[in-house]
Amino acid sequence: MDIPFWNREIETLDRASLEKVQLERLRQMVSWALKTPFYGRKLASAGIGSPEDVKSLRDLERIPFTVKDDLRRGFPRGLLAVEMSEVVRIHSSSGTTGIPTVIYFARDDLDRWTDLLARSITATGASSRDILQNMMTYGLFTGGLGLHYGAERVGMTVIPIGGGNTKRQIQTMKDFQTTVLHVTPSYLLHIHSQFENEGVRPGDLAVKRAFIGAEPHSENTRRKIEDLLGIQAFNSYGLSELNGPGVAFECVHRKDMHVWEDAYLIEIIDPKTGQNVEDGQEGEVVLTNLVRRAMPILRYRTRDLAFVHPEPCECGRTHRRLSRILGRTDDMLIINGVNVFPSQIEERIMKVPEVATNYLIHVDKKGALDRLTVKVEIYPKLFLGEAARLEALRARIREELRSSIVISPNVELHEPGSLPVSEGKAKRVVDERPKD
Amino acid sequence: MDIPFWNREIETLDRASLEKVQLERLRQMVSWALKTPFYGRKLASAGIGSPEDVKSLRDLERIPFTVKDDLRRGFPRGLLAVEMSEVVRIHSSSGTTGIPTVIYFARDDLDRWTDLLARSITATGASSRDILQNMMTYGLFTGGLGLHYGAERVGMTVIPIGGGNTKRQIQTMKDFQTTVLHVTPSYLLHIHSQFENEGVRPGDLAVKRAFIGAEPHSENTRRKIEDLLGIQAFNSYGLSELNGPGVAFECVHRKDMHVWEDAYLIEIIDPKTGQNVEDGQEGEVVLTNLVRRAMPILRYRTRDLAFVHPEPCECGRTHRRLSRILGRTDDMLIINGVNVFPSQIEERIMKVPEVATNYLIHVDKKGALDRLTVKVEIYPKLFLGEAARLEALRARIREELRSSIVISPNVELHEPGSLPVSEGKAKRVVDERPKD
Ligand SMILES: [Zn+2]
Ligand SMILES: [Zn+2]
Repeated sequence: MDIPFWNREIETLDRASLEKVQLERLRQMVSWALKTPFYGRKLASAGIGSPEDVKSLRDLERIPFTVKDDLRRGFPRGLLAVEMSEVVRIHSSSGTTGIPTVIYFARDDLDRWTDLLARSITATGASSRDILQNMMTYGLFTGGLGLHYGAERVGMTVIPIGGGNTKRQIQTMKDFQTTVLHVTPSYLLHIHSQFENEGVRPGDLAVKRAFIGAEPHSENTRRKIEDLLGIQAFNSYGLSELNGPGVAFECVHRKDMHVWEDAYLIEIIDPKTGQNVEDGQEGEVVLTNLVRRAMPILRYRTRDLAFVHPEPCECGRTHRRLSRILGRTDDMLIINGVNVFPSQIEERIMKVPEVATNYLIHVDKKGALDRLTVKVEIYPKLFLGEAARLEALRARIREELRSSIVISPNVELHEPGSLPVSEGKAKRVVDERPKD
Repeated sequence: MDIPFWNREIETLDRASLEKVQLERLRQMVSWALKTPFYGRKLASAGIGSPEDVKSLRDLERIPFTVKDDLRRGFPRGLLAVEMSEVVRIHSSSGTTGIPTVIYFARDDLDRWTDLLARSITATGASSRDILQNMMTYGLFTGGLGLHYGAERVGMTVIPIGGGNTKRQIQTMKDFQTTVLHVTPSYLLHIHSQFENEGVRPGDLAVKRAFIGAEPHSENTRRKIEDLLGIQAFNSYGLSELNGPGVAFECVHRKDMHVWEDAYLIEIIDPKTGQNVEDGQEGEVVLTNLVRRAMPILRYRTRDLAFVHPEPCECGRTHRRLSRILGRTDDMLIINGVNVFPSQIEERIMKVPEVATNYLIHVDKKGALDRLTVKVEIYPKLFLGEAARLEALRARIREELRSSIVISPNVELHEPGSLPVSEGKAKRVVDERPKD
C-alpha cells in the first residue's frame, strides 16, 4: 500500500530524535507557561523557575497536574501567556457550571493546529480530490472550525454544513457526491437510519470515509458504521483544552490513533494515585501541549480512559498509538456497589446483529436498590415475529450484558426512531437517582 | 483624521487606471465564464465568443443578465468553471424553493474574498487591536465564515460565536470586552432590549463598532442602534451569489458604502426596462464579479434597490459609493393598488422616539379590501400613562406613516418583547392575503 504522508520527516522521526524535539519544546513551553499567573505559581511550587530546570523528559512528572477547574478558576485571562492583541481566535465551551472554559490561539498556534489536522486527514488516505461534508458544529466548539481549516489546507472541497438538519445532510451527500464525512458516531448512525425515509438507494452516495469523534464509542459501533454504510471509519481524538481535534488520528490501517508526539506529550496515569502506568495499561490520558504559545497547558488531566501501545505501526509512523477512548473517569456508574462504564454496555449491545443504531442507559431507584435499564432500538421487522422470539432476544442481550458488567440489567426493546436522538454529541445515560 | 487603508494603492487608484484594471479583469472573467455550459450558451447568443469581443467596459451591456433562477437551473455544476478538485469551498443557500443556490470557491477565490473583507474591516477603523464577536451564522451561509476569514487576516481577536443565544452573546460581550460586533440590525436591537434583563450596566461593555448587514434597514434604524448603544454602526453589503459580505462597506465617514470596484462591476438598472440609469438615480443593483475563477457571475440581478453616487469621499478612496439598500424589487407590497415598500414604513417608525426596537407589518383582507396593520413595540413605561397619551401616540405614528406611504394603516402598540423575534435575518412582513 502506498502510505500517504503530510510531513514524512516528522511523522517517521526515530524515537531518539523525536524525544530530543520533545525536550526542546517542553522547555519552550515552560518558558511560555511561566508568563501566566497560573503556571507562574504552579511551577514555582514545584521548584521550576526557568526552562533550565527541566533537564530531561522525566522532569515532566515534577510538574503538577492541571484540571478543568483550574481553567475555569483562571477565567478569563489567568492562563493567557501573550497580549490580547496577539490572540486571533477565542474558543470556549459553556459546560454545565456556567463558567466557560476558554481557549486562546495566537496566529502561529492556529497555523500549527491546522497543520496537525492536515496531517491527520492525509494519514487516512483522504486528499485534495475528496469532498468533505463537515457535520460538526461550527462556532465556539473547536470540532467544526478545527477540521475545516485542516481540510482547506489539504485542498479538499469543504462543505461547511455544520450539525443538524438530517434531511439536508442526506440531500447534500447526494447532490455533491460527498466522499468524506466528519461527524459524531451517534449522529452518523442516526443519519443512516433515515436513508430509507429519504429514498437513498444503493449507488446514490459516494461516501468512502468518515472521521468519527467527539464522543466515546465502542469498536463495535465503528464496525456497525463501516458495515451499514460500506465505508471506512477513522477514530479521531482531541479536546478543546489542548486545541481541539487533531491530537490523535487513525492512519489507513485503522488500528488505533497516532498521537502527534511532536505536538503533544502523552502520559497515561492511574487516576487514583496520579502515577504513570506502563505502556499498554489502561488509565487516564494526561496531555501536555508542546507548541502552543498563547495558552500553554501542561499535564492536563483529560478524564478520558485509554491506553498507549508503542509497537511500530505498519504505516511507518513512529508516533505511538492511543487506543480508542474506553470511557471517562467521571462517567462511571455505581450500580448497587458495582462499577459499570457505559462504554462496556455499548460494546456489548452493538455486537448484537438485531440491534439497530440507537440506545439509552437509564438508572433510577426502586426502593433502596439501584435499577439499571438498557433501552435498545431493534430493527422493525423483528416486531412482526412471534412474541417468544422477542423475548428470546431480550434474554440474549441481558445475558450478553451480564457477562460483561456482572450485574443483570433490565432490557427494553424499542422500535427504531422511538428513543431520543441527538444531532451532535449523544446523551447516552439518564441517571434519575436522587443526589445526596 | 488618520485614514486607515488595507491596500492604499488599489483603494485610491484614479478612475482611469481603475477602469483599465476593470476592463482587463472583465476580459479574464469572460474567458473563465466561457468554460461553463451556462455562459458558453449565454455569451454565444450575445455574440461574445472570446474575451477579445469585449472591447470596452461599454460592451458589458451586451451581456445578458443572470438571475437567481439561472443559478438554480444550473444546479449543481452548470456554472462551475474549474475541475471539482480545484474547489476548496462550497456555500449554498436552501432558499424557499428547495433547490439550493450553490457557490463554488477555488483557493485563490477565497484568498481574494478574504482580502476584500480585510479591506472592508480596515476601512471602518477597526484593526488587529479589536475583539470581534461574530454573531452571523457560521456554516453554509457566507456571512459568518466570510467575515471571519477577513477579520483573522486583519489580526483581530475573533470570537466565532455565531447567531442566537442572546444571554450568552451578552455575557460574552462582558467577559471578553468585545469591541466590534458583526450582526443583523434587527438582532442587535433585540440584544439591546435584553440588556436590562441581563443586568448590563453602563461601563460593562466595550463595544465601539458594529458591522450591520444581511437585511435591508433604514437610516433611522442605524441611528437608533448608534444612539442606544453609543457606538458607530457601519453598513455592509454583499450577497452569496457574488461571494458574500465584502461587496461594499462603509468607511470611517459612514456616508454610504464603497463598492470595491476592482473586484465588482456595479450597474444600477431600471428593473422594468433593464436599461442602466444615471448615477444618483434609484434602481436595481446589478453586479459582475471581476475576480472569481471557480464560478464567474456576470451581470447578476440582485433585486436590491439602491443608487450609486460618484462624488469623491473625504477618505480619499476612489471607489464609488452605494446607498444603503432601500428595498427589494420583490418585497413591494401592493395595498389596494398603492405600492408600499416595507423600508418606507421602517424609516418612519424608527424616527418616533417612543418606538422601541421591534415591529411587524401585517397584511390581510377585510372583505374585498386589503388591510395594512403596523405593529410596533413601544417602551413599557408608556403603558403606565393615561390611555389618552397612548391614543395620541398611535395617531401620531399613523400620520407619520400616511405622509410617507399615502395610505393610512392600522397601528397597534405593543409592549417590548411581545412581537416575534428573529436571531438572524428578521421577518418583518406577514402577508396573509389569499394568493390567486
Ligand atoms: Zn499507522
Ligand atoms: Zn470613504
